Amino acid sequence: MTHEVNITRMDAFTYRDLISSGDAVVLIPVGSVEQHGAHMPLGTDMMLSTKMSELTAQQIGAIVGPTISFGYKSQQRSGGGNHIVGTFGFDADTVIGICRTLVREFSRHGVNKIVFVNGHYENYQFVYEGVDLAMRDLAGLGEGPRVMLLSYWDFVTPQVIERLYPEGFPGWDVEHGGVMETSLMLEYFPELVQMDRLIDHPAAELPLYDLFPVDPSLTPASGCLSSGKASTAEKGRILAESIVTGMATAISGRL
Amino acid sequence: MTHEVNITRMDAFTYRDLISSGDAVVLIPVGSVEQHGAHMPLGTDMMLSTKMSELTAQQIGAIVGPTISFGYKSQQRSGGGNHIVGTFGFDADTVIGICRTLVREFSRHGVNKIVFVNGHYENYQFVYEGVDLAMRDLAGLGEGPRVMLLSYWDFVTPQVIERLYPEGFPGWDVEHGGVMETSLMLEYFPELVQMDRLIDHPAAELPLYDLFPVDPSLTPASGCLSSGKASTAEKGRILAESIVTGMATAISGRL
Amino acid sequence: MTHEVNITRMDAFTYRDLISSGDAVVLIPVGSVEQHGAHMPLGTDMMLSTKMSELTAQQIGAIVGPTISFGYKSQQRSGGGNHIVGTFGFDADTVIGICRTLVREFSRHGVNKIVFVNGHYENYQFVYEGVDLAMRDLAGLGEGPRVMLLSYWDFVTPQVIERLYPEGFPGWDVEHGGVMETSLMLEYFPELVQMDRLIDHPAAELPLYDLFPVDPSLTPASGCLSSGKASTAEKGRILAESIVTGMATAISGRL
Amino acid sequence: MTHEVNITRMDAFTYRDLISSGDAVVLIPVGSVEQHGAHMPLGTDMMLSTKMSELTAQQIGAIVGPTISFGYKSQQRSGGGNHIVGTFGFDADTVIGICRTLVREFSRHGVNKIVFVNGHYENYQFVYEGVDLAMRDLAGLGEGPRVMLLSYWDFVTPQVIERLYPEGFPGWDVEHGGVMETSLMLEYFPELVQMDRLIDHPAAELPLYDLFPVDPSLTPASGCLSSGKASTAEKGRILAESIVTGMATAISGRL
Amino acid sequence: MTHEVNITRMDAFTYRDLISSGDAVVLIPVGSVEQHGAHMPLGTDMMLSTKMSELTAQQIGAIVGPTISFGYKSQQRSGGGNHIVGTFGFDADTVIGICRTLVREFSRHGVNKIVFVNGHYENYQFVYEGVDLAMRDLAGLGEGPRVMLLSYWDFVTPQVIERLYPEGFPGWDVEHGGVMETSLMLEYFPELVQMDRLIDHPAAELPLYDLFPVDPSLTPASGCLSSGKASTAEKGRILAESIVTGMATAISGRL
Amino acid sequence: MTHEVNITRMDAFTYRDLISSGDAVVLIPVGSVEQHGAHMPLGTDMMLSTKMSELTAQQIGAIVGPTISFGYKSQQRSGGGNHIVGTFGFDADTVIGICRTLVREFSRHGVNKIVFVNGHYENYQFVYEGVDLAMRDLAGLGEGPRVMLLSYWDFVTPQVIERLYPEGFPGWDVEHGGVMETSLMLEYFPELVQMDRLIDHPAAELPLYDLFPVDPSLTPASGCLSSGKASTAEKGRILAESIVTGMATAISGRL
Repeated sequence: MTHEVNITRMDAFTYRDLISSGDAVVLIPVGSVEQHGAHMPLGTDMMLSTKMSELTAQQIGAIVGPTISFGYKSQQRSGGGNHIVGTFGFDADTVIGICRTLVREFSRHGVNKIVFVNGHYENYQFVYEGVDLAMRDLAGLGEGPRVMLLSYWDFVTPQVIERLYPEGFPGWDVEHGGVMETSLMLEYFPELVQMDRLIDHPAAELPLYDLFPVDPSLTPASGCLSSGKASTAEKGRILAESIVTGMATAISGRL
Repeated sequence: MTHEVNITRMDAFTYRDLISSGDAVVLIPVGSVEQHGAHMPLGTDMMLSTKMSELTAQQIGAIVGPTISFGYKSQQRSGGGNHIVGTFGFDADTVIGICRTLVREFSRHGVNKIVFVNGHYENYQFVYEGVDLAMRDLAGLGEGPRVMLLSYWDFVTPQVIERLYPEGFPGWDVEHGGVMETSLMLEYFPELVQMDRLIDHPAAELPLYDLFPVDPSLTPASGCLSSGKASTAEKGRILAESIVTGMATAISGRL
Repeated sequence: MTHEVNITRMDAFTYRDLISSGDAVVLIPVGSVEQHGAHMPLGTDMMLSTKMSELTAQQIGAIVGPTISFGYKSQQRSGGGNHIVGTFGFDADTVIGICRTLVREFSRHGVNKIVFVNGHYENYQFVYEGVDLAMRDLAGLGEGPRVMLLSYWDFVTPQVIERLYPEGFPGWDVEHGGVMETSLMLEYFPELVQMDRLIDHPAAELPLYDLFPVDPSLTPASGCLSSGKASTAEKGRILAESIVTGMATAISGRL
Repeated sequence: MTHEVNITRMDAFTYRDLISSGDAVVLIPVGSVEQHGAHMPLGTDMMLSTKMSELTAQQIGAIVGPTISFGYKSQQRSGGGNHIVGTFGFDADTVIGICRTLVREFSRHGVNKIVFVNGHYENYQFVYEGVDLAMRDLAGLGEGPRVMLLSYWDFVTPQVIERLYPEGFPGWDVEHGGVMETSLMLEYFPELVQMDRLIDHPAAELPLYDLFPVDPSLTPASGCLSSGKASTAEKGRILAESIVTGMATAISGRL
Repeated sequence: MTHEVNITRMDAFTYRDLISSGDAVVLIPVGSVEQHGAHMPLGTDMMLSTKMSELTAQQIGAIVGPTISFGYKSQQRSGGGNHIVGTFGFDADTVIGICRTLVREFSRHGVNKIVFVNGHYENYQFVYEGVDLAMRDLAGLGEGPRVMLLSYWDFVTPQVIERLYPEGFPGWDVEHGGVMETSLMLEYFPELVQMDRLIDHPAAELPLYDLFPVDPSLTPASGCLSSGKASTAEKGRILAESIVTGMATAISGRL
Repeated sequence: MTHEVNITRMDAFTYRDLISSGDAVVLIPVGSVEQHGAHMPLGTDMMLSTKMSELTAQQIGAIVGPTISFGYKSQQRSGGGNHIVGTFGFDADTVIGICRTLVREFSRHGVNKIVFVNGHYENYQFVYEGVDLAMRDLAGLGEGPRVMLLSYWDFVTPQVIERLYPEGFPGWDVEHGGVMETSLMLEYFPELVQMDRLIDHPAAELPLYDLFPVDPSLTPASGCLSSGKASTAEKGRILAESIVTGMATAISGRL
């Protein structure tokens, strides 16, 4: 049985109780609003980072939220590109500002252990900068929480990768809209996945560089960088188990 | 029967179809993550602005989202104050940046009619600035959508106010956590309201100025500025009807 | 008899003497350069906020200045709109920066009690942010003055409103260029008011939302939102007395 | 006989008439609020830049204002230093923002000829940057006024310098609070100068570099960098005549 | 025989000739000033990105420079961490601003083909943002060059990797101070490498996340993430040949 | 005999040893990439400020670097203007950010004595602001180094000026590309100077103001503001000796 871990659905008095020990762990999901092909919703990244966070939180007694739904610009080699209609790309400055404030606000609340759970490839460096600036802000006050930053797919074990990608793993960068995301969505948000609309195609072959202006012909017409056709809810369960176990271990061990 | 209007739960191909005419209206809910007493969740403002937007969208054939959940700092005279644990206050710069980007990105998609539906009192001027700067950005490109900015409670008619507040209406600023918000939550998110935890007290009497540092004793211990005790789901329905009708009329008439 | 209270007309040695106790109160007027119809000067807001501040300062032994003459963009529902020639609208960032610096600089001087006296409706939230950021800056130094923020018209008592607006009070938002501002100018800067040029018209009826781009037809051709025709210097005296008494009481009581 | 040239004391309709030809010249005075010894007011720089602008405007049919009273930080080698109580130093960012907006706003009004008249040594580079950024902003719109930037003392002719400083001219950088400023104030704002409070001392001998933190012992106790003792209103008239003639010639010849 | 390709050592008239066709390619090296163990200089990244750029430029008739020596903060999992003395980490904002300006300035000069050659792992996303913002700036002017962004090590072919790392390739992230960088330095800047000071140790085993504050014990005492012991100048030649060939092909083929 | 003083060519362990006493002096050269006529390279300013710093450092046991090669926009009255192809002008914000970070980073390293050695006229005020903001940042941490800011040419003595400019000294502002810079380059970087390409012309006669948009006809076609024809390596030696002696004395005496 699960209990409520997401603070946006929790009242302030309950929240204060949960963090009163000073030992509470907060997981902040970081996603995007970005096209994910014809078979998955624009909110895929924010939904999955939130779900992976909530599952982990339930396992280790942590709390979750609020979700950052506004991510950095989609890049062609990891998200198809920000020229695509349906994708919302925020400037570095805004992503950094959101993360910086969240660290500062949680710290003001008395929360000392914060984990950013990234679910949109392009975000990582900007979340990093936001946290780094917040730590600098708080240093001036003689304070400062411990913060961990990770991308959830990094916790899929090599064993699981080998098992789920028997014909070879294309890499997390071209996973965009592929087997991992689709399987996780099938397991956790099946009503939002339409497998019959999925466009099958080989993994995109992208160059070793980025181009401005982008060359749209390099992105498959689906907007996905690899095909989610082989996805199943069961794979989603296996992936999630690997991710949650890994994250739970890392957080409990280091924060 | 309702249909999906929220773009975060919609795939990119469907989204593109819906906006392809160039005539689509997008409603962007603007809320906050902010304490709302012991009886309502931190996400109250983002949930209600999203719900009012979705109901309106269904009525006029518009679409909704993504929701801005990160609002400007809670101020004592309208939200209890940003010193309270459970409230997350973002700098002007960040709120402005989010709104500015959303206008630019929707405009890039080809959307020409945008409505910001505010549900957190403090946000208004910063959303205004974000839109204004985006219009300036787009002027340089010879483009620019039409944008409407409103706070949803302004569409509650005087007749409804008179009917629902028979002992006198305290004003929208001290509504924070009061009868309107609680009634709307009871109607649309009953599972997230705990009326048995509601703390009853007279409306806060706040001075004609703001103080820094804030004097916490001026905010009721509940964190609400007026009591939600008289709230009912039925009042929520009446309020929503007034709001949705008003917004629908305004949007259809002017955009 | 009055004495000099404005620090811009005061030498530094005198200024240092006046603030040496650490108990001095400084009032900072915040205005704008904005069209105020055909009968009043562009500097109306900066002149009135300065004058109200100086009168209050003389009553409570405070000092005044420097005046912030560069205000946030005029908005249609409170100032006619920033599209009008003769109005100067500054970005949020600049207004915030000015206020933030003034708090920091007065604090560096050893001034511990600061009041921002707003005289341009649109400024309020941006002054608030400037003060809030300065308080954060100074927290890092273990310092920080007490700051009060107000708009001067909020201190006109209900009794005075009832007396001066016998046919009903339209609200401070549409006061722009109306009876209050004109009467105060007639009392304090009569040489700058030309009642024979005043354009009479009903109060503007403005919608419940803002539109971008603005619809200029919603603002009366005068640029004012209500008519100042009923203005007299005597009303100016009555208004000023109410304002000054209220501000003096609030400042003395709380700072 | 003089006529009103300052737009802050002018109504919007008159202002619009004056600029309607598209050929109007606007002079924007740039000053500071800064200690100027025991004998002159904090507002000296803003008063003098405004006065020099108004006199020039009257001569060439231009208009003036609004005055920028918030200047860049006082530096030890030109203003005594920003550590001194009574001096208000604004960040580069704020000074730049103010100037950038003024160019944009005047350009929006249809004004095509703008002159910044600097009266605070430290401002120059930041006004320059503000104008440069505004020109870039406006280039995107295919617009752009002609802008001139000057410091008023540069128009004192060598002949006048030789005549007024018979024992050798110390340079405009150490003029702060000296003979030029004091003489101009005696001529135009005599009621604000107290010659009996003037502190006489040799010109400051300042090093070839700036130090952080500043060494306060390098600034004379008066806060002035040279003595204003030899000042007279007559010298003020001679200086002003030279300045105004030079500025008028330059503006008429080049804009 | 080589000829001068670096514009910082070239006069402006020669530079103008070289770019006058509108077809010139400019390579901009991006590095850092960062500790690289006891055996290599702080300027390693800026020197190598400049050298790889110059070699490529000589092959394809391009020009090079100026080098960006100020890179983003060193991160523990790719550069040892920014807590280490000898490393200089710049904020995202500054790195972005430098790149944005360079694109704008080269575009103003009439250069239409620009390549950023990254040599400091952490920089990539911030260079990307700088270029993206510059493209947005220039869009407003109806202009815009073609820009390519790459990290030079991505052009080392799998064949070369297999040959030079016979015991397995640890990944470019932990290459910091390892065999590639040391071999390239031995080939091109042998006078700046002191192999006798090289500290030998196994490749660092770093976690799947970043921690704030950093745990210094996770970085080897050398500051390098893998050992450069197996480095030789010959390996440097082989690596450079692979890199230069790959970059030359990519640039010639796509820009 | 000289030894290595430039930290970019120094390994981190050696650097740490050199600064371990807490008494080390670091000189940071500040230059530009800017056209310097047909006879000198674009990197002239960064090369000369670096060389003057290194020579001084060798004399007083200091260290040097890293060089800031990205300077503020060239201005017509001191550098010919930023409209010229071959000149790279950075925004105030970027120059300020670079300097601010360098002070913060050196301070983090434990360096307490920092000197900015400016070699590009236009930079001065922006370096000043960068240092000032860094000092404010560090004040919050209860830290802060001593920082000196200078332009190297200010240390050429009047005796040397009289000797090297027998026909009258035109001023450092119009020195751009003239006798001082050319002579110093001839002495220290002779391989980069082409005296046969030097364009001889009288010193530019520039007005007492800046114009936007710039009037290109006011800058000589060479891009230089005075002629370097009379330059010799010997003059370079004499100038350098004066500069280095002066800087060494100032730094040793005051830091």
